[in-house]
Amino acid sequence: MASGTLLYAQSGGVTAVINATASAVIQTARARKVKVLATRNGILGALREELIDTSRESAAAIRALAHTPGGAFGSCRVKLKSLEQDRARYERLLAVLKAHDVRWFLYNGGNDSADTALKVSQLAAEFGYPLTCVGVPKTVDNDLAVTDCCPGFGSAAKYTAVSVRECALDVAAMADTSTKVFVYEAMGRHAGWLAAAGGLAGTSADEAPHLILFPERPYDEATFFTRVKATVERVGYCVVVASEGIQTADGRFVADAGAGKDSFGHTQLGGVASYLAGRVKDTLGYKVHWTLPDYLQRSARHLASKTDLDQAQAVGKAAVEFALKGMNAVMPVIVRTADAPYRWKVEAAPLSKIANHEKKMPANFIRKDGYGITDAARRYLEPLIRGEAPPPYGRDGLPKYVVLKNIPLAAKLPAFNG
Amino acid sequence: MASGTLLYAQSGGVTAVINATASAVIQTARARKVKVLATRNGILGALREELIDTSRESAAAIRALAHTPGGAFGSCRVKLKSLEQDRARYERLLAVLKAHDVRWFLYNGGNDSADTALKVSQLAAEFGYPLTCVGVPKTVDNDLAVTDCCPGFGSAAKYTAVSVRECALDVAAMADTSTKVFVYEAMGRHAGWLAAAGGLAGTSADEAPHLILFPERPYDEATFFTRVKATVERVGYCVVVASEGIQTADGRFVADAGAGKDSFGHTQLGGVASYLAGRVKDTLGYKVHWTLPDYLQRSARHLASKTDLDQAQAVGKAAVEFALKGMNAVMPVIVRTADAPYRWKVEAAPLSKIANHEKKMPANFIRKDGYGITDAARRYLEPLIRGEAPPPYGRDGLPKYVVLKNIPLAAKLPAFNG
Repeated sequence: MASGTLLYAQSGGVTAVINATASAVIQTARARKVKVLATRNGILGALREELIDTSRESAAAIRALAHTPGGAFGSCRVKLKSLEQDRARYERLLAVLKAHDVRWFLYNGGNDSADTALKVSQLAAEFGYPLTCVGVPKTVDNDLAVTDCCPGFGSAAKYTAVSVRECALDVAAMADTSTKVFVYEAMGRHAGWLAAAGGLAGTSADEAPHLILFPERPYDEATFFTRVKATVERVGYCVVVASEGIQTADGRFVADAGAGKDSFGHTQLGGVASYLAGRVKDTLGYKVHWTLPDYLQRSARHLASKTDLDQAQAVGKAAVEFALKGMNAVMPVIVRTADAPYRWKVEAAPLSKIANHEKKMPANFIRKDGYGITDAARRYLEPLIRGEAPPPYGRDGLPKYVVLKNIPLAAKLPAFNG
Repeated sequence: MASGTLLYAQSGGVTAVINATASAVIQTARARKVKVLATRNGILGALREELIDTSRESAAAIRALAHTPGGAFGSCRVKLKSLEQDRARYERLLAVLKAHDVRWFLYNGGNDSADTALKVSQLAAEFGYPLTCVGVPKTVDNDLAVTDCCPGFGSAAKYTAVSVRECALDVAAMADTSTKVFVYEAMGRHAGWLAAAGGLAGTSADEAPHLILFPERPYDEATFFTRVKATVERVGYCVVVASEGIQTADGRFVADAGAGKDSFGHTQLGGVASYLAGRVKDTLGYKVHWTLPDYLQRSARHLASKTDLDQAQAVGKAAVEFALKGMNAVMPVIVRTADAPYRWKVEAAPLSKIANHEKKMPANFIRKDGYGITDAARRYLEPLIRGEAPPPYGRDGLPKYVVLKNIPLAAKLPAFNG
């Protein structure tokens, strides 16, 4: 193997399986005798020269990463701008890579990270530094272009579908004298992928969820209330899955309607479910409950999808293989070759086709009436939540999640303030 | 076996394992050739003479109840008053029992249900009707007297501990540039049992949860903020588990502080986590997130505790055995015979010792500083979340939960309006 090290970084919101990708990256590189460094807290660690020597972790710890949620090396929400605007930071990045003899840079994230990896590869070429940059896909938002789906999404989707099915059984049992309307708030500021996954919880017309609110369709309170009332009168209760990103026809986020300051000047935090529940209670008079799973939906490794886990590991392995072959400025993506039986493979796609693009949910995934998913959506979504891959549990009844030692490498460069 | 039927009813908030109790009741009775009727929607079904013939359900369906959350026959939130105040309803109950030759009445619920079962047994004795009444314990609140713990609590406790551990890994990974304070809202209006269970997620001082807010201790904002700030400065982030029932020193519920009407006259629904998060953001300036799992925590059968499941089934089996032996006005309770290794057995306790009593969390379960749990609490709680008992999953990636046919029996009496 050529000398040099491989640098791996995690970016953006973490998922239930991003560490499974990290595990596959490190295991694949180790098998090829390539040393892997990781950045502390994503791209910030590269800028700050806060690097971690993963060779100090045991084989067992690296294996255990595959069943540990969160981001084992730390992630960050930092987006570099264009090469012109952020030139000093890109040059610092390159200096840090050079100082640690990094020849392969793997950036595990979404659209922004693909863009950063692409720009780093361009700068390296400009400076004549031999560097192979590979983006590695990850996001519960499922909004990356080219790839059929994004590692992390399938597990969050499974969490959503299972949770909606479970709470619906609770509501059904109590509706006669208790809660009649239940609202489940799903992540998805721009696209309704996770809300759509909630739709997998039911298959017949009157099975929960009865109504799904997508950010792709304008939210109209009057129509929604008519639907809620009709559902309660027909079924006895109504379970609603609402995407956090729903907007009214004039483009205002519904979540912001409940936010602001109260009469004491205290912050009222927004939230679609809380707001909708309050309005339903006020207007229709039903007893309401709601849930905001928030980070639980993207960290629930205990309920990971086996398909998702397999794909998270496959892109990690492929990323190392692509890098070592010198395939620069690419990302391993999932290609679906068949729906039933579900078949997929990993291919390389150019980062330029992925960077800064956003994949929307196809229009034919939303039912004509706007409140449910279509068979096309089911065909797409269902394989992604298939299969279980529970973590090992300890004698204490808790999953055996690993916390790495994360031993820092000594810095070789002066500190950087940028 | 003596002739006559056994009537089973579910009461109050449902749990992940109350159907496992129902499954054990029906299986045990079937083995003894006793016919089991169930009420539709708890005691309401008995008053309305809406009874279900469980013999119409297959053996497979009854077995599947053991892994299905919710309340398979429906439950209700209705509390009967004293025999004097609610005499007409108690007499109606007895008339319905007589009409269907009910000789054994099993009421699966909490304190109130124990009280109702006790009063029905007293009225039957007064009328000379041979009836054996048995209470069957159930509640995620873990507040029943006499029994060491309540079926339903262990699974909700496991859900809480696992969820807190998982979201803490998410927060830890992102804290450098994102959320620094995360608030998890646990059920428990009167006692901090589930909040305490969240404490099992961490074992060392700086492991999440860093702070637990118990309803047993007055909530003091200034002290809490000092703790939050110190934790963020020391650890980098702070995970808080807050019981929905926390109150200020003057007895006001903190959840109500965020509730009320906004400036448009719209209902602002309460919520401890939302309120605390808003205050932390305003006062300390940290980025905050929060979660309100709500019904998810009591319906997450996918994450049930094996101990809890075993106990839910054991009390169901024992209830039938006690009933058939004619042990009137009792409840099968869990007796802990050893902490390590954990040992338990089921005994009969008089309903009179359980009805309308409420078990508080022992004072020595809360750390002296008021923000965490003690070793005594861990010794008590840990065995209750031990063991996994996942449901079977289908090819579609979802748990195979059963929905019963619930075929109604023809009414024999005139309708009752009461």
